[in-house]
Amino acid sequence: MTDWPTINFAAGPVAVSEQTSAAQARPVLYHYDPAFIELFEHTTSLLKQVYRTRYDVVILQGEAILGLEAAAASLISPGDEVLNLVSGVFGKWYGAFIEKYGGRAIEVAVPYNDAVDPNDVRKALQQNPKVKYLSVVHSETPSSTNNPVKAIGAVAKEFGVLTIVDTVSGLGGELLSPEEWGIDIAVAGPQKCLSGPPGLSLMAISPNAWKAMAEKADPVRGSYLSILDWKEAWIEQQRFPYTPSVSDIYGLESALCQVLEAGVENYVARHEQIARACRAGVKALGLELWAAREEIAGSATTGVKMPKGITDEQLRGHMRKRYGVMISGGYGELAGQLFRLGHMGIVAHPTYLAAQMGVLERSLADLGYPVEFGAGVGAAMAALKDWKAS
Amino acid sequence: MTDWPTINFAAGPVAVSEQTSAAQARPVLYHYDPAFIELFEHTTSLLKQVYRTRYDVVILQGEAILGLEAAAASLISPGDEVLNLVSGVFGKWYGAFIEKYGGRAIEVAVPYNDAVDPNDVRKALQQNPKVKYLSVVHSETPSSTNNPVKAIGAVAKEFGVLTIVDTVSGLGGELLSPEEWGIDIAVAGPQKCLSGPPGLSLMAISPNAWKAMAEKADPVRGSYLSILDWKEAWIEQQRFPYTPSVSDIYGLESALCQVLEAGVENYVARHEQIARACRAGVKALGLELWAAREEIAGSATTGVKMPKGITDEQLRGHMRKRYGVMISGGYGELAGQLFRLGHMGIVAHPTYLAAQMGVLERSLADLGYPVEFGAGVGAAMAALKDWKAS
Amino acid sequence: MTDWPTINFAAGPVAVSEQTSAAQARPVLYHYDPAFIELFEHTTSLLKQVYRTRYDVVILQGEAILGLEAAAASLISPGDEVLNLVSGVFGKWYGAFIEKYGGRAIEVAVPYNDAVDPNDVRKALQQNPKVKYLSVVHSETPSSTNNPVKAIGAVAKEFGVLTIVDTVSGLGGELLSPEEWGIDIAVAGPQKCLSGPPGLSLMAISPNAWKAMAEKADPVRGSYLSILDWKEAWIEQQRFPYTPSVSDIYGLESALCQVLEAGVENYVARHEQIARACRAGVKALGLELWAAREEIAGSATTGVKMPKGITDEQLRGHMRKRYGVMISGGYGELAGQLFRLGHMGIVAHPTYLAAQMGVLERSLADLGYPVEFGAGVGAAMAALKDWKAS
Amino acid sequence: MTDWPTINFAAGPVAVSEQTSAAQARPVLYHYDPAFIELFEHTTSLLKQVYRTRYDVVILQGEAILGLEAAAASLISPGDEVLNLVSGVFGKWYGAFIEKYGGRAIEVAVPYNDAVDPNDVRKALQQNPKVKYLSVVHSETPSSTNNPVKAIGAVAKEFGVLTIVDTVSGLGGELLSPEEWGIDIAVAGPQKCLSGPPGLSLMAISPNAWKAMAEKADPVRGSYLSILDWKEAWIEQQRFPYTPSVSDIYGLESALCQVLEAGVENYVARHEQIARACRAGVKALGLELWAAREEIAGSATTGVKMPKGITDEQLRGHMRKRYGVMISGGYGELAGQLFRLGHMGIVAHPTYLAAQMGVLERSLADLGYPVEFGAGVGAAMAALKDWKAS
Repeated sequence: MTDWPTINFAAGPVAVSEQTSAAQARPVLYHYDPAFIELFEHTTSLLKQVYRTRYDVVILQGEAILGLEAAAASLISPGDEVLNLVSGVFGKWYGAFIEKYGGRAIEVAVPYNDAVDPNDVRKALQQNPKVKYLSVVHSETPSSTNNPVKAIGAVAKEFGVLTIVDTVSGLGGELLSPEEWGIDIAVAGPQKCLSGPPGLSLMAISPNAWKAMAEKADPVRGSYLSILDWKEAWIEQQRFPYTPSVSDIYGLESALCQVLEAGVENYVARHEQIARACRAGVKALGLELWAAREEIAGSATTGVKMPKGITDEQLRGHMRKRYGVMISGGYGELAGQLFRLGHMGIVAHPTYLAAQMGVLERSLADLGYPVEFGAGVGAAMAALKDWKAS
Repeated sequence: MTDWPTINFAAGPVAVSEQTSAAQARPVLYHYDPAFIELFEHTTSLLKQVYRTRYDVVILQGEAILGLEAAAASLISPGDEVLNLVSGVFGKWYGAFIEKYGGRAIEVAVPYNDAVDPNDVRKALQQNPKVKYLSVVHSETPSSTNNPVKAIGAVAKEFGVLTIVDTVSGLGGELLSPEEWGIDIAVAGPQKCLSGPPGLSLMAISPNAWKAMAEKADPVRGSYLSILDWKEAWIEQQRFPYTPSVSDIYGLESALCQVLEAGVENYVARHEQIARACRAGVKALGLELWAAREEIAGSATTGVKMPKGITDEQLRGHMRKRYGVMISGGYGELAGQLFRLGHMGIVAHPTYLAAQMGVLERSLADLGYPVEFGAGVGAAMAALKDWKAS
Repeated sequence: MTDWPTINFAAGPVAVSEQTSAAQARPVLYHYDPAFIELFEHTTSLLKQVYRTRYDVVILQGEAILGLEAAAASLISPGDEVLNLVSGVFGKWYGAFIEKYGGRAIEVAVPYNDAVDPNDVRKALQQNPKVKYLSVVHSETPSSTNNPVKAIGAVAKEFGVLTIVDTVSGLGGELLSPEEWGIDIAVAGPQKCLSGPPGLSLMAISPNAWKAMAEKADPVRGSYLSILDWKEAWIEQQRFPYTPSVSDIYGLESALCQVLEAGVENYVARHEQIARACRAGVKALGLELWAAREEIAGSATTGVKMPKGITDEQLRGHMRKRYGVMISGGYGELAGQLFRLGHMGIVAHPTYLAAQMGVLERSLADLGYPVEFGAGVGAAMAALKDWKAS
Repeated sequence: MTDWPTINFAAGPVAVSEQTSAAQARPVLYHYDPAFIELFEHTTSLLKQVYRTRYDVVILQGEAILGLEAAAASLISPGDEVLNLVSGVFGKWYGAFIEKYGGRAIEVAVPYNDAVDPNDVRKALQQNPKVKYLSVVHSETPSSTNNPVKAIGAVAKEFGVLTIVDTVSGLGGELLSPEEWGIDIAVAGPQKCLSGPPGLSLMAISPNAWKAMAEKADPVRGSYLSILDWKEAWIEQQRFPYTPSVSDIYGLESALCQVLEAGVENYVARHEQIARACRAGVKALGLELWAAREEIAGSATTGVKMPKGITDEQLRGHMRKRYGVMISGGYGELAGQLFRLGHMGIVAHPTYLAAQMGVLERSLADLGYPVEFGAGVGAAMAALKDWKAS
């Protein structure tokens, strides 16, 4: 049997804290047990605080892609025009959901190491006045880059366009504000910056989005893809449309509690500091960041161009096999072009950054890349001068 | 904060063993970690053994209703005729999925305390020669009754009709055999007789069902509802269409291991013995079984008609509040008409049956029902003369 | 490998709650980690509340017998006269500690199914005016009986005699009050009524006991048996004489929290109610209580005379093997004469009492004892009319 | 409430693996449950393999100091001469046990950063022909140094002297062999190199040691300090002299299994490699090792002289508070003179070494020590060229 890794630094699901692990092990309750109803309600209220919103939040009982598909299914009617911003693999893929549910996807695309310019969004909306929805990926995990969702949302609001924001790995890594940013449907995952278990979609939904869903010719109801079912059952009557994933809810509650104990601002700041330090380490090793510009690098993972002479599989395989360290490679179209260092959740910490960078140095050297030992960890640690524990 | 219950005897999610709880707490792995790939594969192979099948099995990453909806979505084309057998709430509801995906549901219905007669199925198929699919609930949990799926499947095979079997609470409680019974798509839940965590759909799929899905005019792909995605990604390439629910897979693997350690035959026999003893206890207390005949009573739960003068809410609330015991009531249309004693998974055991029956006696007495103390537990224990530990 | 039991109803170590189990799994801290110092201090303060005392409490890092031996070693000087009250195996054994440390044990003994009469204590103290210490077992677990420690302590105080009280299985099962009862050294175990892990001695120590220890010619210091070491290191300087049992302290803290959440009075009342109901059940089955009189029966376990024709090993072996239920037999000199039903901690609850009694009935019948099924559970449940959840 | 540390790098108790944590959470069994008897026996057999001995092993139910005291108590008679080798705080302290039990301690002492020379042992034994026992600390944790026990044992055997070896933090960190090394009583702790929970003494006992204990004028029996009790109860009759620490035994079993899965040789080699790399890192930072010579540096911890201008409390406090990293300082007489980096058990791994060294660099810089960032981690990683995962 394959040994389990020493540390999981992948692009998600990420490592969870011992409290969250312990929470997952609590006795499985009947979902209509009063203690579970209370816990689910509590989880919902914590999620609102982490989203920093007064919008309704909905927890769909499936991995974040369920929430993303549900958003498309719930809003789009045949023929609807949707402006789909593409700066990476996940943005590109969203076009398929748009078309699946009958929409017409109009793409604003940039290279997969870049971010979408809000001015290009404005131009596109001016050129396509019938656009009803805009979809954008906040944190493009495969590219380790962020789009400027706040500015993009502002543009969308000028045009009265509803926005669908994939912030699966964005929530917890940057300070979001659905109302202020003009987000109508946000979809996050617990298994990224929040250090929770995978298996749930964490959604925030604006009143306008609810309205659009309900007024659609054929509203999505009575389906695993239905967001309205959750509104009408859970939000309005504290009933469940179907059995929720009890243990994952325990894990989520625990993870959210920990974010709020730290304080969302501190929690996000921790991710940003570690990501910055990680980039400093990478550069000091003579490696190249994948992101075209450091300003658009995200705080979930750090993408690094594969150095010449070493393949993605060699590097990741070696780190995993010899040192028990799991990192991620390029994904989809980007496979083979970059590797990604992960620093989400509990591993967004100086100890784990030093561990990851140290093993990266050792592994690169093992594989023949010319490493000045200590350069990477040293630059990373130097960059953490103002680290504050939270 | 509401105290957690002492014991969960509900209709599912049910209590899980300490090993399964501990499994849920294992470190969250990246889904492409070699150790997770191995574990997922192992889980799949265990599931086949528990299903006692050589068909492919697919684990969809959402509660069993996802598998049920996915079956309808994946097979039914607009205009398809589907014979939907209705002996309870869940059977009735399946009609909605059939119609949602464009099918025409032809119902064979019996009262909700009865089971469908295979002869009526034959007649219906003779009268409706265009029927392509037959859908049936194996274990109608809300009614605590079983349909004779083996005989029904045989009839369906005579007519070349594909079958969709909801065995969510049936797997583990009765000895299934997909090939022999003529099942084309089976959907089970881990959180019922298998004593696993909720959040997954456990499917067995016949070659004919795969063929029908693939040959459909517009096959379901690129969706959370797609079964084909799992075939083409996981079964054919050991890749995941999206991030699986890692912790729930740990829990499922553990639960399946325990079933197989006991032996599927023993495991099922344990459920059947306990269910029989439970019915003996209920009758000895002068209460009436919900099931029209004892032969059709299932081994997941035992439905009991509400005795005069006591409401469902009173009884369940009292048991939960004073004795920390959670049982289930009637569901959907049956709400208020019956209560259900649960005996699935780890609580399918003499100790827990005595506990549940003892507290039921005490509670009924507290609420004014004339109880001869000990009659219920006594009859139940007496019925366990040949109990074999497994 | 032998299967683990379904439920542990033994005379201790007993089953612990899921919270306590989870606490045992927390990361092992360095004992001088500030978080551990804080946790140890917290545990100490909780223990005082559970003991309902303002005396110092000391947690020795070994099973309760360590505390009992340490009390003898710390107080007794060669030639000291100690009145040792004997109503069972453990009381008898204490004489060995007395003699080991040079004391002269003067016994007041009663049959092992009886309790010591405070008047006999008075007489003995009058006849032996040089007696310095009195040792008594509060809850004689092997006999399932209690001694009237409150009255005995009052007598000791009349004579200025220091008392050593073995309340290993007494704390949590009866409302203690060291000051009011005249207890100078109390020794309890976490693994009995408190539902904690074994491995610790929970002591309460009066100022007079401290004085006696310090003024002894050769005070016990620098030893695993030293209570003074803990006073001088932990109480006075928050240092440890040696590494404490970190995980067991976690478990103890958790267990004590749960006792205090329920309220000590409620917690004790729960034990007393269940013990009473258990005795009702036993009698209703035509079995004989071991205790000479019901007033002296303890609330930790219920001792039952072996019925004719069945041996201790048969009964316990059968219950364990066929039904996964672990109970205790007679211990030491009492081996073979009785069996003991356990109802400490989390199993001091109607559900578990019904479970235990139900399986006892079934097992007795299996072994040929004439059982009227339901008589035991029925009488037990009937006796719980005024059960209050806490 | 004080936050828990991110990583525990202390001198023990050390961090344990997730499997060991999970083991600690298993249901508490009655110690006479057949499953526990089996588990205890299994643990004993695993311990023999880890000790690489055919001698009896005994697990005393208290922290390793209990085993050390028990060895003195069990062997030494008033007037016995014991050669006590002193190369650090723990060696010095052992003299107190010798005298407490009536022995006459003859000291061979070296400075606390040095190791005892076997030739000096020979000389001392020549000069003191009546010496019956020799006591020596294998791994002097407070000094982070090892004594050459193998050579010392050989000398003792020449003189027919029985040896008591404190290998509390030695077992698992160096390849021991009681028979070959001439060890009569070895005492180890689970909470050091074995990565187990504290609270147990792991002893290996030679036939000669058993003989000496039994032939002593007043053999130690009927006491928490008795090793003979365990022989006569557990080894000879599979009974327990008193209730063992059930949960800690679970943890120990799990920890031993993991050592044996890796293979004792690999496990020890891992510790040695990491210790060597740690020393390389320390030196590269311009810090001075505490050990007089690198050959005597142990593999449990690495002692480092406090650099000028920084106090022990500052450094440890800062690392703990700002970075959540717990290390140990000097102990006893050595307090304030050194700090200790820990690399026992699961943290004896490149990832954790990089983490510890990186945070050390960052902390030293924060406190004003002139750090060339990366020098320490770099040298450590460079030294791990031949690391083999086990």
